[in-house]
Amino acid sequence: MTDPKAMEAAVHEYVAAFDAGAPERVAALFAEGATVEDPVGTPPHVGKAAILAFYAASMQTGAKLKLDGPVRICGPYAAFAFTVHLHWEGRDQRVEVIDTFRFDDDGKVIEMRAFFGPTNMHGFS
Amino acid sequence: MTDPKAMEAAVHEYVAAFDAGAPERVAALFAEGATVEDPVGTPPHVGKAAILAFYAASMQTGAKLKLDGPVRICGPYAAFAFTVHLHWEGRDQRVEVIDTFRFDDDGKVIEMRAFFGPTNMHGFS
Repeated sequence: MTDPKAMEAAVHEYVAAFDAGAPERVAALFAEGATVEDPVGTPPHVGKAAILAFYAASMQTGAKLKLDGPVRICGPYAAFAFTVHLHWEGRDQRVEVIDTFRFDDDGKVIEMRAFFGPTNMHGFS
Repeated sequence: MTDPKAMEAAVHEYVAAFDAGAPERVAALFAEGATVEDPVGTPPHVGKAAILAFYAASMQTGAKLKLDGPVRICGPYAAFAFTVHLHWEGRDQRVEVIDTFRFDDDGKVIEMRAFFGPTNMHGFS
């Protein structure tokens, strides 16, 4: 099983890579056959190429992530609350999100799920 | 689908019922055949009687829950970060947790999963 400190470091790298606008750094955290379901209930992005494309598009908004409190580490899972800050079409916007990462035995993220919905989106209208 | 406001209210009732030491109020939030996996990776408590017994035992510690930020609502899911505060064996202790609730069409919680581990437990040794 992956070391909790390494899992926590992967979450911080995820946030830092977003800040740096570096989708390839985010994609590097994922396993080859990983799935990204963002938000939960939508069709997942499957595989590293699809995941890279998804994050590259996401970062074009200039979104910055800010962790809300400590990362929760539970067996092969990391769960973390954060807020996405956007400045889009002249407006400051934010989205409150909780993500879960499941890690494989090689310490790569094999499954990501993002929990947020309309009640968590502020400044969009 | 359950109304997001009702789902958010269920999370607040969960916290308030814990505060009041009222396990039957917590159990009332769950569907008859619900599962509670706390923490994720341990054998789930299945069914309302088992869930009531689990929460009655949990509350004997005098644990109080404090939400860390807004509830995330995503389709049939509510995800929320909180801290459990305990005073046990003369020590102040706390545990950082993220829970996910999945609701059924009747607005009852059908699945609960709690994410936390040793790195989230403070003051225990």
